[in-house]
Amino acid sequence: MQLGMIGLGRMGANIVRRLMRDGHECVGFDVNSDAVDAIVADGAAGATDLQDFVSKLQTPRVIWLMVPAGLTGSILEQVADLLDEGDIVIDGGNSNYRDDVRRAAAMRKRGIEYVDAGTSGGVFGLERGYCLMVGGSDAAVQHIEPLLKTIAPGVGEIERTPGRTGELAPEEQGYLHCGPAGAGHFVKMVHNGIEYGIMAAIAEGLNLLENADAGVREAEHSAEVAPLEEPEFYQFPIDTAKVTELWRRGSVISSWLLDLTATALNENPTLHDLAGRVSDSGEGRWTVKAAVDVGVPVPVLSSALFERFASRGEDHFANQVLSAMRLQFGGHKELPAGDVLEAGGRKSESNDRGQSDTA
Amino acid sequence: MQLGMIGLGRMGANIVRRLMRDGHECVGFDVNSDAVDAIVADGAAGATDLQDFVSKLQTPRVIWLMVPAGLTGSILEQVADLLDEGDIVIDGGNSNYRDDVRRAAAMRKRGIEYVDAGTSGGVFGLERGYCLMVGGSDAAVQHIEPLLKTIAPGVGEIERTPGRTGELAPEEQGYLHCGPAGAGHFVKMVHNGIEYGIMAAIAEGLNLLENADAGVREAEHSAEVAPLEEPEFYQFPIDTAKVTELWRRGSVISSWLLDLTATALNENPTLHDLAGRVSDSGEGRWTVKAAVDVGVPVPVLSSALFERFASRGEDHFANQVLSAMRLQFGGHKELPAGDVLEAGGRKSESNDRGQSDTA
Amino acid sequence: MQLGMIGLGRMGANIVRRLMRDGHECVGFDVNSDAVDAIVADGAAGATDLQDFVSKLQTPRVIWLMVPAGLTGSILEQVADLLDEGDIVIDGGNSNYRDDVRRAAAMRKRGIEYVDAGTSGGVFGLERGYCLMVGGSDAAVQHIEPLLKTIAPGVGEIERTPGRTGELAPEEQGYLHCGPAGAGHFVKMVHNGIEYGIMAAIAEGLNLLENADAGVREAEHSAEVAPLEEPEFYQFPIDTAKVTELWRRGSVISSWLLDLTATALNENPTLHDLAGRVSDSGEGRWTVKAAVDVGVPVPVLSSALFERFASRGEDHFANQVLSAMRLQFGGHKELPAGDVLEAGGRKSESNDRGQSDTA
Amino acid sequence: MQLGMIGLGRMGANIVRRLMRDGHECVGFDVNSDAVDAIVADGAAGATDLQDFVSKLQTPRVIWLMVPAGLTGSILEQVADLLDEGDIVIDGGNSNYRDDVRRAAAMRKRGIEYVDAGTSGGVFGLERGYCLMVGGSDAAVQHIEPLLKTIAPGVGEIERTPGRTGELAPEEQGYLHCGPAGAGHFVKMVHNGIEYGIMAAIAEGLNLLENADAGVREAEHSAEVAPLEEPEFYQFPIDTAKVTELWRRGSVISSWLLDLTATALNENPTLHDLAGRVSDSGEGRWTVKAAVDVGVPVPVLSSALFERFASRGEDHFANQVLSAMRLQFGGHKELPAGDVLEAGGRKSESNDRGQSDTA
Repeated sequence: MQLGMIGLGRMGANIVRRLMRDGHECVGFDVNSDAVDAIVADGAAGATDLQDFVSKLQTPRVIWLMVPAGLTGSILEQVADLLDEGDIVIDGGNSNYRDDVRRAAAMRKRGIEYVDAGTSGGVFGLERGYCLMVGGSDAAVQHIEPLLKTIAPGVGEIERTPGRTGELAPEEQGYLHCGPAGAGHFVKMVHNGIEYGIMAAIAEGLNLLENADAGVREAEHSAEVAPLEEPEFYQFPIDTAKVTELWRRGSVISSWLLDLTATALNENPTLHDLAGRVSDSGEGRWTVKAAVDVGVPVPVLSSALFERFASRGEDHFANQVLSAMRLQFGGHKELPAGDVLEAGGRKSESNDRGQSDTA
Repeated sequence: MQLGMIGLGRMGANIVRRLMRDGHECVGFDVNSDAVDAIVADGAAGATDLQDFVSKLQTPRVIWLMVPAGLTGSILEQVADLLDEGDIVIDGGNSNYRDDVRRAAAMRKRGIEYVDAGTSGGVFGLERGYCLMVGGSDAAVQHIEPLLKTIAPGVGEIERTPGRTGELAPEEQGYLHCGPAGAGHFVKMVHNGIEYGIMAAIAEGLNLLENADAGVREAEHSAEVAPLEEPEFYQFPIDTAKVTELWRRGSVISSWLLDLTATALNENPTLHDLAGRVSDSGEGRWTVKAAVDVGVPVPVLSSALFERFASRGEDHFANQVLSAMRLQFGGHKELPAGDVLEAGGRKSESNDRGQSDTA
Repeated sequence: MQLGMIGLGRMGANIVRRLMRDGHECVGFDVNSDAVDAIVADGAAGATDLQDFVSKLQTPRVIWLMVPAGLTGSILEQVADLLDEGDIVIDGGNSNYRDDVRRAAAMRKRGIEYVDAGTSGGVFGLERGYCLMVGGSDAAVQHIEPLLKTIAPGVGEIERTPGRTGELAPEEQGYLHCGPAGAGHFVKMVHNGIEYGIMAAIAEGLNLLENADAGVREAEHSAEVAPLEEPEFYQFPIDTAKVTELWRRGSVISSWLLDLTATALNENPTLHDLAGRVSDSGEGRWTVKAAVDVGVPVPVLSSALFERFASRGEDHFANQVLSAMRLQFGGHKELPAGDVLEAGGRKSESNDRGQSDTA
Repeated sequence: MQLGMIGLGRMGANIVRRLMRDGHECVGFDVNSDAVDAIVADGAAGATDLQDFVSKLQTPRVIWLMVPAGLTGSILEQVADLLDEGDIVIDGGNSNYRDDVRRAAAMRKRGIEYVDAGTSGGVFGLERGYCLMVGGSDAAVQHIEPLLKTIAPGVGEIERTPGRTGELAPEEQGYLHCGPAGAGHFVKMVHNGIEYGIMAAIAEGLNLLENADAGVREAEHSAEVAPLEEPEFYQFPIDTAKVTELWRRGSVISSWLLDLTATALNENPTLHDLAGRVSDSGEGRWTVKAAVDVGVPVPVLSSALFERFASRGEDHFANQVLSAMRLQFGGHKELPAGDVLEAGGRKSESNDRGQSDTA
């Protein structure tokens, strides 16, 4: 069937390519005409502006928006003015599900169907397919199902879940109608919230492995330093690149994120060129806020988010306040960075240790 | 080559079977003679007691202990008395790595090689193989490598990590010599710590999905209750069984634990027969304590552990203290269970809400 | 000076009484005429309806709203229709600071000054005074300062902060103009967020003290149970009522919340009549959401909030998911409640402990 | 009565002074002879070595050790060799309660009474008195009670807890016999664990206040940056020095730690000379480990500890791993420090925001 794609960045262009490979017909538009030219070279029809774009689509039109989240609202407004009743607009970007709820209501009044499609798959999506979490009316989602089926990864080589029999369900093919408009991005949001948690679990564990030799390192330091309590138990120089590779096979924690970690550590075992300033991109935050709204405890997901904040120094004033309190009640001066050993075998406060405990 | 196995429970017997399938020769012993008979029926040699067991092994003997962690120490003592210098004892159970460090030192004095092998694989190990994390001297681990290679999953159908070339490394075959004695169980411990974190991330996310309809449920309740602030954003009845199935394909969080979750929810979508009292089994605790020792922050791993404690009611006195304080400063009575709606659409304190905020 | 109070519940009536004691003139209104009669008996003027109320106030009128947060918006609308330019309305309730920002903007268009006053003090406020966190324009806050000074606790017997000299600043008298409209409730919100954290810190610590005898309790149980690893270190039957009383004197953690805890435990050392279902009342949630918005890590404040959610069973589905996964990968059955001892000396899974670690 | 003090640092010397002021007789010893001279000048007897020290004490001798925790064990050994049955040694330092349990058992075999006294009070102890948490046998603690009574703060000006009547209990005077040897330092350990939690709660809250103007700061930045979602709600430039001063009066969170924070912020509102590298000193770690041992959830106390670890950069490798994963699955480059605005109005990743959400 036919799809019009607005936004021909990496994601949008790859979805178009994946659709055309499977026999669908695509019309592409982007403010960057080079992006349009490139997709036309691959076999799509190109449009010079939104009016041209809309005119090239058969009704009921099916339009996929794949633009930065900050622009979705205004582009939706512009394109909606050119549409007819019964047309379908799909937001495939990274919108907050709350915007979907609002936009779907606004479009509904104009007779336009609004569908939200959360996508996961990253840079591997063209080959691997995109996991699709979809929200919208039954009629609209049913209408676009052929497109979803193509964009999705399909059943692939993944073993069937024991107990499932008969015809393949949509979720076994990599797409799912999750509920009314907003449900797709809601499920995608939670997916990313979980992703933060899994990433953090792996990262924390590897950090512990990386420091399993704290008892060895300590011995390199001067004798006057507060010792690690039982250095004999921390004498392991662990190779985290090898361990993550190992865990890919037969372990309980085997996972795609672990695969990627093994790749990264194999390329660069010390990760020395990374500053460790970890970005976050909305969904992790929205997940925590949604959990707070409905009263669901998410200590793991929130810890993962807050670690990222702290990695960028957003804990600075809090830490200064802590140091200031310690100075007040115990006269504890801060240690200069990298000065002496920590109880954990690294950096520490040898001088006031005796006093600080008495607070 | 030849291996003697002490402990023929599920794990021990399956390892013996996996070894024999690959042409190794095995001698088995267990206090339960039925277990010995069963493994003999499968082709192993059986032993009637430890003396008989040791006598059936060629020197340097290679003995694998697969017994409950609480018994490993005393059985090691008994068997060591019967061994010769150069013999090798492998602890394949779930020992605390600290015990390995102590035991290896004691065995070293007697000329016996002590190897610890952390194993992951659960009930699927016989077919899938066991991921092996091994600690011990270079000589000892090299000697037993043919056994490790067989017990491990091997390279399987898992795609090779990009950037790895040439001969397959041990870790690509599912076993790894991680370091000196104790290193194997240390790495296994951290593996399980990470496992707790991943499990919790998935569980918290699904709990949020399960409550994505809080705004619907609220409407069923009486009007006098403190409302969910924006019920219009929590109108999604999400099918978690379908969502977990979906995420198996193409999503960033695809993983073996997610596969198992999809299986469990497909069998039993409401999980109604589970009380949610989650056990923990040592490694998660040891991970947190090791991290505290060396000064590595593990908020996600510890949160996952503490959620399990709380699931069993271990937070009870703390919660009583909180209620007692609220009673003191605000006169807030506790609400009876299930009485009225919460801000999150479920249970709440309608009466004193106006006052409680003023504390 | 004159103040009109709408809402004569405990808080509103006590503020009126505190003002009248100090010579201010008050007009009171409440939909409950008994509450009006009571305050009239104490010397205030009473009003029969809003029109009567407004007519009894001299311009520029100063009106304090002390009504449940859910009603503030509509009552503000009603009263604003009766006011003149230059009149001042103070919201002293527990509004979300976001509502203040919106309401202040709406009132500003009508020439009405909107002031928000976050109050802390609970049931002790009449005698102790109310800590006042105020937001609004400079002119409006300056105009009502005589009222704020009376309602606030004043300097009291609290020692002056070292380094402060000269005339007493407003904050030393217990009130503060924190910034533009909304700033008062914002600061109050954070105050309550901190309150949650402090309460949780005390509660968790006391829970640990309450379980410092885990090694003793364990001995009472049968031998077949997985033992607490080092019971000899957990032999302390601690009296938490005495300990909290002790800490009131000379300890670093002496605080009003500790005073209240000591009172509660002295009255009822076992807290047996409390179910430990801990309510939360908005500010703790808003604090976490605001921190997420601006990217500030608040792991302690969020943990405190999530403990409350969990105390009410909101973690249930997550825990069921965890049990379901354990059943899948290790065949671990859930233990019945209260069956056997935990590693921590209480409840545990004796049977599968040996196996569960192998996952 | 008579006390011999070993260790005349700030704490030891001040305890001696406090005892002498109240009529007790003291003998002091320190390896630093200047410290001995100073205390002799204040009226104590001085000793030139341990033998001299012991000879100057009447039996049953009462000896207080106030030395760095790392030295307590060896000094105890030395002094014990010089003692007689029935003598009492008190460890007033910051020992791990586990050492107390071991040492008390060793001393018991030699007929020596071992008492542990956890002390809180910091630099203010001389005037304010030291809160004393004591472990040991009934007989020993009873014998030294006159000393404890003097060292403790006494009832002071603190209001009596409602419900307490009659003679003042020891805990009302600032000392408490908490249980057998080790119980004193156990309670002290938990006290400090709580202290960490309270400090963190205050610090996190103030960090949020400090960033309540994120919406203002954002406007100073270029337009191409991902905006704070609702900047209109973060327009508050809050003066944290004034707010902490305010909260000292009538608020629910008034506390000694808040008093100290107000002092620190009054002296130095920006805390600009503090690096925010927060030390920790043992008890916080021991608290978390003890909680893990007995299965008590302490998410707040552990979060407070882990924030300190992270403040010293101990989260570095974990953060690098996170960045490495993001690079793998989304091609997300790390942003240089301080480059662009964050969603929270500060630092952010403008370029890949559109893409990162699709992972």
